[in-house]
Amino acid sequence: MRFFAIGGYNEVGKNMSAVEVNGEVVICDMGVQVDKLIEIEGGGDEYRKTSTHKLVQLGVLPDDKVLHGKKVVAIVIGHAHLDHCDAVPRLAERYRCPIIGTPYTCEVIKRVVRDEDVPHIRKHVQPLNAGEVAVLSRNFEVELVNMTHSIPQSALVALHTSEGTVVYLNDYKLDNTPTLGEKPDYKRIKELGKNGVKILVIESVRAGEPGHTPSEMVAKVMVKDTLRKAYEQRRGLVVASTFASHIARLKAIIESNKGERKIAMLGRSLMEYVEPAREMRLLETDEIVIMAKKRRGVAAALEKISRSKDDWLVITTGHQGEPKAVLSRMARQEHAFKFGKDDQVIFSSDVVPVPINMANRSELQRLLKNQGVRIFDGVHVSGHAKREDDRDMIRMLQPEMIFPSHGDKEKLLALASLAEEEGYKIGHTVRVLHNGAIVDR
Amino acid sequence: MRFFAIGGYNEVGKNMSAVEVNGEVVICDMGVQVDKLIEIEGGGDEYRKTSTHKLVQLGVLPDDKVLHGKKVVAIVIGHAHLDHCDAVPRLAERYRCPIIGTPYTCEVIKRVVRDEDVPHIRKHVQPLNAGEVAVLSRNFEVELVNMTHSIPQSALVALHTSEGTVVYLNDYKLDNTPTLGEKPDYKRIKELGKNGVKILVIESVRAGEPGHTPSEMVAKVMVKDTLRKAYEQRRGLVVASTFASHIARLKAIIESNKGERKIAMLGRSLMEYVEPAREMRLLETDEIVIMAKKRRGVAAALEKISRSKDDWLVITTGHQGEPKAVLSRMARQEHAFKFGKDDQVIFSSDVVPVPINMANRSELQRLLKNQGVRIFDGVHVSGHAKREDDRDMIRMLQPEMIFPSHGDKEKLLALASLAEEEGYKIGHTVRVLHNGAIVDR
Amino acid sequence: MRFFAIGGYNEVGKNMSAVEVNGEVVICDMGVQVDKLIEIEGGGDEYRKTSTHKLVQLGVLPDDKVLHGKKVVAIVIGHAHLDHCDAVPRLAERYRCPIIGTPYTCEVIKRVVRDEDVPHIRKHVQPLNAGEVAVLSRNFEVELVNMTHSIPQSALVALHTSEGTVVYLNDYKLDNTPTLGEKPDYKRIKELGKNGVKILVIESVRAGEPGHTPSEMVAKVMVKDTLRKAYEQRRGLVVASTFASHIARLKAIIESNKGERKIAMLGRSLMEYVEPAREMRLLETDEIVIMAKKRRGVAAALEKISRSKDDWLVITTGHQGEPKAVLSRMARQEHAFKFGKDDQVIFSSDVVPVPINMANRSELQRLLKNQGVRIFDGVHVSGHAKREDDRDMIRMLQPEMIFPSHGDKEKLLALASLAEEEGYKIGHTVRVLHNGAIVDR
Amino acid sequence: MRFFAIGGYNEVGKNMSAVEVNGEVVICDMGVQVDKLIEIEGGGDEYRKTSTHKLVQLGVLPDDKVLHGKKVVAIVIGHAHLDHCDAVPRLAERYRCPIIGTPYTCEVIKRVVRDEDVPHIRKHVQPLNAGEVAVLSRNFEVELVNMTHSIPQSALVALHTSEGTVVYLNDYKLDNTPTLGEKPDYKRIKELGKNGVKILVIESVRAGEPGHTPSEMVAKVMVKDTLRKAYEQRRGLVVASTFASHIARLKAIIESNKGERKIAMLGRSLMEYVEPAREMRLLETDEIVIMAKKRRGVAAALEKISRSKDDWLVITTGHQGEPKAVLSRMARQEHAFKFGKDDQVIFSSDVVPVPINMANRSELQRLLKNQGVRIFDGVHVSGHAKREDDRDMIRMLQPEMIFPSHGDKEKLLALASLAEEEGYKIGHTVRVLHNGAIVDR
Repeated sequence: MRFFAIGGYNEVGKNMSAVEVNGEVVICDMGVQVDKLIEIEGGGDEYRKTSTHKLVQLGVLPDDKVLHGKKVVAIVIGHAHLDHCDAVPRLAERYRCPIIGTPYTCEVIKRVVRDEDVPHIRKHVQPLNAGEVAVLSRNFEVELVNMTHSIPQSALVALHTSEGTVVYLNDYKLDNTPTLGEKPDYKRIKELGKNGVKILVIESVRAGEPGHTPSEMVAKVMVKDTLRKAYEQRRGLVVASTFASHIARLKAIIESNKGERKIAMLGRSLMEYVEPAREMRLLETDEIVIMAKKRRGVAAALEKISRSKDDWLVITTGHQGEPKAVLSRMARQEHAFKFGKDDQVIFSSDVVPVPINMANRSELQRLLKNQGVRIFDGVHVSGHAKREDDRDMIRMLQPEMIFPSHGDKEKLLALASLAEEEGYKIGHTVRVLHNGAIVDR
Repeated sequence: MRFFAIGGYNEVGKNMSAVEVNGEVVICDMGVQVDKLIEIEGGGDEYRKTSTHKLVQLGVLPDDKVLHGKKVVAIVIGHAHLDHCDAVPRLAERYRCPIIGTPYTCEVIKRVVRDEDVPHIRKHVQPLNAGEVAVLSRNFEVELVNMTHSIPQSALVALHTSEGTVVYLNDYKLDNTPTLGEKPDYKRIKELGKNGVKILVIESVRAGEPGHTPSEMVAKVMVKDTLRKAYEQRRGLVVASTFASHIARLKAIIESNKGERKIAMLGRSLMEYVEPAREMRLLETDEIVIMAKKRRGVAAALEKISRSKDDWLVITTGHQGEPKAVLSRMARQEHAFKFGKDDQVIFSSDVVPVPINMANRSELQRLLKNQGVRIFDGVHVSGHAKREDDRDMIRMLQPEMIFPSHGDKEKLLALASLAEEEGYKIGHTVRVLHNGAIVDR
Repeated sequence: MRFFAIGGYNEVGKNMSAVEVNGEVVICDMGVQVDKLIEIEGGGDEYRKTSTHKLVQLGVLPDDKVLHGKKVVAIVIGHAHLDHCDAVPRLAERYRCPIIGTPYTCEVIKRVVRDEDVPHIRKHVQPLNAGEVAVLSRNFEVELVNMTHSIPQSALVALHTSEGTVVYLNDYKLDNTPTLGEKPDYKRIKELGKNGVKILVIESVRAGEPGHTPSEMVAKVMVKDTLRKAYEQRRGLVVASTFASHIARLKAIIESNKGERKIAMLGRSLMEYVEPAREMRLLETDEIVIMAKKRRGVAAALEKISRSKDDWLVITTGHQGEPKAVLSRMARQEHAFKFGKDDQVIFSSDVVPVPINMANRSELQRLLKNQGVRIFDGVHVSGHAKREDDRDMIRMLQPEMIFPSHGDKEKLLALASLAEEEGYKIGHTVRVLHNGAIVDR
Repeated sequence: MRFFAIGGYNEVGKNMSAVEVNGEVVICDMGVQVDKLIEIEGGGDEYRKTSTHKLVQLGVLPDDKVLHGKKVVAIVIGHAHLDHCDAVPRLAERYRCPIIGTPYTCEVIKRVVRDEDVPHIRKHVQPLNAGEVAVLSRNFEVELVNMTHSIPQSALVALHTSEGTVVYLNDYKLDNTPTLGEKPDYKRIKELGKNGVKILVIESVRAGEPGHTPSEMVAKVMVKDTLRKAYEQRRGLVVASTFASHIARLKAIIESNKGERKIAMLGRSLMEYVEPAREMRLLETDEIVIMAKKRRGVAAALEKISRSKDDWLVITTGHQGEPKAVLSRMARQEHAFKFGKDDQVIFSSDVVPVPINMANRSELQRLLKNQGVRIFDGVHVSGHAKREDDRDMIRMLQPEMIFPSHGDKEKLLALASLAEEEGYKIGHTVRVLHNGAIVDR
C-alpha cells in the first residue's frame, strides 16, 4: 500500500490524499485553499480566468501531478466544505472516475461544478448513504460512517483494501447532541477498531487545544439568547451572519425567530448550501420571505427592507469580512441601504485566523461601528475536534499508524504529540508528513 | 447626599460602599479580598489569629475608618459571595444595625458569622425578599430587585432616599434562561429608570469584554455533555469541581448524573452554601450519598471511594488549586486515595486571573497530569455582565450619574468609556473613583 | 483661548490640532491616515484621483471644516512623518499662511508638495531651527525645541500666546544617546515648565507600555550584529528594510556594512527622505552604488544585482509588506530577480499593528519563506515614548492641563490614567478628547 | 555507544545526560529544578532537611538510578548555573570521579558543595580551560570549547570517544560582541563539524522563537540608559536586581554607575558568584562599599542606606520575586528600611515564565507600587540561542544525529522541527527524548 499526502499537510486548507493498492488509486478529498481564493477573488472575476496550472503554483489548488497517469478508481469526498471539495471542477475531470459522497455532499458538488462551467462532471457524482458500503474495484471498497461536523451529512471514510483498512477522518467533531442529523455512529467506529485499522488519517486543526469541543446545542442556546435579546430592543434591523454551509446554525437562527420577523436570506454562497438542504428537507425555510443571490435581487431586497427595518431579520454572508459579500457591501453603503444606531449584527462564527480574514473582518467591524451598529461576535462553537476528542477517537479505532492531516507543521505535531501520549512513536507509528510525501506500508 | 467608595474601587474584591443622607448612612456590601485571604490561609490558621487592624492594613478587609462614629442605619448585602459579605464578622459589629439581604444571602451570612465565632451578630440579620421594600429610617428605604448572577437570590439594591434613588448593582448578569430562580425583574428595573435614578453603582469586572454574557443554560449543556462523555469511558473516578456558591452549577452536575453514579460531596466551603440551599429547597440532594466537610470525614469518604472508583462521582472544592482544598489534597496523595489513568477531573470554572491562583492551579494540574488523570477545563460560563449587558442596563436605568465599581482602574475606565458611548462624560456624569474617595451630590 | 482637536484623537494617524486666540489661529500638524492611504493606493493611482472631500469622508484626511474662514496665521509641523505632514498638499492652500518646521522637515514637505502637483505651496514653507523663536502675529510666537524621535530634526512645538503657552509634543522619545542629532533640550524644556505651560498636547501611542523606550543606540547595536552575522554566511544577497524616514537607522545599516558590500538603495519613498538628508549632510551615502526610485531603474538594478548577489546589500522599502513596495515586488518575482536559499532579509522595523499591515506583511513573509529566504524580524526599537518617559515629561513641564493625542480612546485613557497618577483629574485637568472636540480655556 | 537522557528532557531545568562507551560512562551536567527548589525553600530550611530520595521523587533532582553501579569516569559541567550544577552536592559523591569544568565553573561548584556541607567533594573538582582537552579514560577525552551564555566561562563540551564525538551544548547563545570574555570559538566549532559529530545535544529553550538572540552589548546599553535616567532624578534610592550569576550584567551596572553613587551589594546568592568572579579578576568591585550576604549584615546595611538614600545604588537579589530574597524583604518592610515615592527599582531580567515566579514577582511589584516606587522592568536580553542561532550551529557542526534538550515536549519539538528544515528526520536523525530514555547508536 502506498499513501500520497497531496494537500493539507502544510496548511489548513486544500485537503487531498490518495491511497494506492496494486496499481489502483482512491483519492480522498479535493479541496481548495479558501483564504487564497478570497484574495484572488478580491480583484473580481480573477479565479475563473486563472489557469489550473497557475492556481496550483499559487497554492490555491493541491498539486496532484504525482497521480497523473495513474488508474484512479474513485474520488471520495468526506463532506462538502470548499477546502475538501472545491477543487473537483478543476482537477477531477482528468481521472474519469466516480465522485462519491453522502447525498448532501453530492448535491453541493453538483452545484459547484455547474457554477464553474463544467456541468458534464455531474454525471460522475454518485451518492452513497452513511452506513453503506460500495465496491469500487478489485482492491477497494468504500464505506461512509455517519460523523458530526459543521455541515450536514459529514462522513468518516473507511477504505477497505486488500491490504487493510484506511480510515480518513477529516474533519469531524464528537457531538452527542447534534441539532441536525444523528450523533456519530460509535458502534460502527468501534467495530472498525476491532477489525483492525492500518492507517488513520485524522484532522489536526484543534488537536493542540485541551478538552472536548462543545456540542452544537451550545451554539443553539447562545444564538437564541442573543437573537431574543436583540429583538427585545424592538427597533432596528437585526442581521445574522454565519458560515453558508452551516445548515444546523441557520436552522437555529430561523427557529429562534419564532415567526416574529420576516426573514430575508441574501447572498450567493448561502443558496449554494441552503437550496439542497431545503430540497432534502434538512432545513425548514417557510419563514424566509426573500431569498436573493444575485446582485440585482439583493439590491431590490435591501431597498425593501430599508423601508421597515424593524420587521426584518436578514441572514447573510460576510462573517469573515469578505469584501464582496453582502454584509460588506451593506456596510460600505453600496446599496440603497444605510445602517443606523438601532441596527444590530450578530456574527455566529469565529474569525478563521489567517491575516487576510483578520484584516477584512476588522475593516468590516470598523465600518459597522462608525455607523453606530451594535455588534455581537463569537456566538459560535467550533466544528473541529479538540485534543480529548482525538484521544477518544484514537482509543476507539486503535490504528496501527496515524497520519495527522489538515494543518501546518505545528498542528500536525500537536496531534502527533497526543498520539505519543497514547503510545505511538513519532517518526514510526505516527508520521508528520508534508505535501508531496509518499509513504509505503 | 454623600457617597463613600470604600472597597472594590482599586481591585476586584473587598466590595464596600456607603451612602449618607442627612447624617444617616447605609452601607452596601462588606466583602474581603479573597485571593489575599487564600495567601494568608496558605500558612494555616493565620486568618483567625490576625487582627482586624492588620487585615485592613494588608488589604484583606476594606478600610471603613471614615464611617466610624457615623449613624449607620443598615448594612445591605447584594449577594452572598465572600467578596461582598465575608467582612461582616469583622466589621459589622461596630455599627449595631440590621444586616439586610435576600433569604439565601442571609442564611449564608449566618453561617459565616457562626464559623468565625461571632454568632451574636446573627440576631442583626434580617431577610428581605426580592420584590419587596423595607423602610430603614427617616431618610432611607431599601428595595431588593431580583437579579441573576452565579449564586442564588442575587439582588439589585435600590436605596430610595429623601434626595433621590441610588441603585447598587454589584454583581450581575442578564440571564434570560436561568437554570435556578427567575430571570431579572426587567419590569421593575425599567420603572426605576422612569422614576429617576440619581446614582448607579455598577460592577465593571467584564465591562471591557464585547457582547453579552451567555446564559447559565449554556454551562448546563456543556456540563451534561462533558459528564456523559466521561461516563462513557465506564472506568475510573469522575471528579467535578466548581465554585462552592454556584448552586445552579451544582444542580446541573447532579442532574447530569441521572442517578447513574453515587455522589460524594467533599469540602467545607461547599457545605457553607449547599446546606442553606438544600434547606430552602433550591437544590435537590437526594443522590448525594456522602457529604463530608471536616478532614476526618473527607478521609473516610475517600478511602471508601477508592475501593470502587467506577461507582462514584465526587463533587469537590479546589478548582482554583487552593492548596488546602480537597482536590489539591487528593492530588498530593495526602489521603488514602490515589489517582490513576482512568480517572477524570472536570473543572466547571475558569481560573480567576490573579497570579496566586494561576500558580496554584497550574501546580494542581501538573500533579494530576503526572498521575495520568484526564482533565476537562473551562466547562463554564461567567456570572458577570459584559459590555452589551451593561449598555442594556444603563439604557433601562438612565441614571444621572454612574460610578463604575468592582475593578482596578483599567476595568473602571472600561465601564466609563462605555458610559461615554451612551452620552455620559468622564469626570462629570461618570466618575472613576478609588478606595477612599468621597463624592458629594 | 480655544483649542480644536481635529485629527488623531480617534486613531493613531492624521494628526491635526489648532489653537485660537483673539480670532487668530495656529494649526499644529496636518497629517494623513497612512494605513487607509495604503489601502486606497493598493488599487493603483487612486489617491491622486480621489477628491479631497471624499478623502476626508473616508477618514484619510482630517476634517478641518471648523477652521474654514478663520484667520490662520501659521501651520507648524513638528516632524516630517506622513501622519503629521502629508495632508499639507491637500489642506494647506486654503489658509495662505506660512508653513513652519525645522529645516529637514521643510525639505521633506517641499518634496511632498512637488510630488503631488501643488508646487506653488513651496513658497509658503519657512524653516525655523530648533532653539529659535519666530513671531507669527500679534497673539502668537512659535518656538521649536530639539526633541528625539525616529526622523531627523523632530521638534517640540511651543506656542507662546497672549493667553499662555501651549506645548505640542507629538511625537517624541527621550533618547539620551541618539545616533543622529542631539539629545532632547532638557534645559529649555525645564525652563518652559518653570515659566508655566497652560496646555500640554502629548502623544499617547505607547503611554500604556511600562518603562522607558530604549535609545536608538540599542537598535544600532542590533543592526550591526545581525548584518555582520548575515555577512558571515558569505553567500547570497542581504536585504535590509526599514522606515524610509528613519535616517538614523539607515545610517546604522550603512555604517555596519563597513564598505564590505556594494549598496543599492531601491524605492521611491526612500528617496523622498534620503535625498534631503544627504543634501543636509545628515547621511553619508558614498557607499551607495545604485539609487533607484522609479520602476524602470529598480528593474535594471535588480537585474544587475541578481548576477552577483554575494556582492550586494540592498536597502529597500516594503517592511510593512506594502504590495506595491520593491520588496513585495521582488518576493512576487515581478522583476528579473529570484530569491534563493542563501538570501537573507532583515526587517529593521516592527509591524505597525493595524490589520492591513499584518495581512500584507504576513503574505510577504510567506512568499519569502517559500523561496527559502532566511528572515530576521524586529531588529528595531520604537520611536515613541513609553509610560515613564511621559511621566518625566509631565514632571518637567508641569502643565496646567493635559490633552492626550495620537491614539484611540484606549490609548488616550492610558495617558490620562498616568496623568491621574501625577495628580491630574480626568475630565478636569486632563481631558480625553475626540476628533471635532473644542475646548475653551 | 549508549546515550542516557536523565534530566531536562521533560522540563526546563535539572539538566543531566550521560554517554556510555565500552562500559565507561561520562555524565554531562548535574542540575536541579530551580522553581521547585524555590517552592520548597519557601517554607524555610526545608531543602537541606529533605532526603535526596525524596527530592528525586519531588522532581527537584534528576533521577540517576539507571547509572548506579556503572563505571563513571567523569562528570563534566558546561557552566555554573544551578540547573546544570546544583545537584552535584547530592548526586556526585556516589561516582567518586573527577568533576570537570572551566575554572570559574569549578570555583562556583566548590562554594556550592561547601555551603551544602559536603566540602570533601571539593577535592574531585578539576578545572580545565576552554580550548583544552583532557584524557579521561581509555574511551573518553573531554574538550571544552569557549562559548557565550549569561555566566562567565560557559563551554561547549565535546566528548571524543572511541566511537565518535558527542557535542553537548546546553546552554549557549552566539554573542559576537560579549561584554565579558571572548566570542564563541567559531574556528574550533567548524573543525569539530568537519571532523564529524555523531550526536549533538542542544538546548531548545528558545528554539521556537524566530531570529537571533541579541548580544549582551544591547543589555549593556539599556542598563546604562536606564540607570543614568534614574540618577537624573537626583533623589531617592536606586535598586538594580539581576541574576546573581550574570557577572557581565553586574559589570554593566557597576560601570554605568561611573563612581557617582556608593554601591551596596546585598544577598547571599550574589556572593556565591561574585566572589569567585572578583578573585579571578572577571569583575572589578572597588566601587562596592558594602557587601552583605547574611541577614544581620543586610539589616545593618539597609539601616545605614536608609539614612541617605540619595547616595546609594543597591544591587540585590529578588528579581523573580523570591519571597526570601532581599528585595522582597525590603518591600515587605522586614528591615529598618522603607521605600518611598522617590525610589526606583530596575529589574535587569525577565520573569522566568513558571507560575510560581509569576505569582511571586507580581506580588513584589504590587508591594513596590503601593509604596510609590517607580519600576523599570525587562532591562534585559536573553542568554539563550534563538531559532536562527540554532540553525547556524547545526550548519557548523553538521551532526549525524540531534537530541534537543532542556525543554518540555513543545520546546524539544520546536528544535526538532528546525532540524527537519535543515534536512533531518524526526524519529530518525533527530530524536525527541524524555527523561529516562536510552538510545543506542
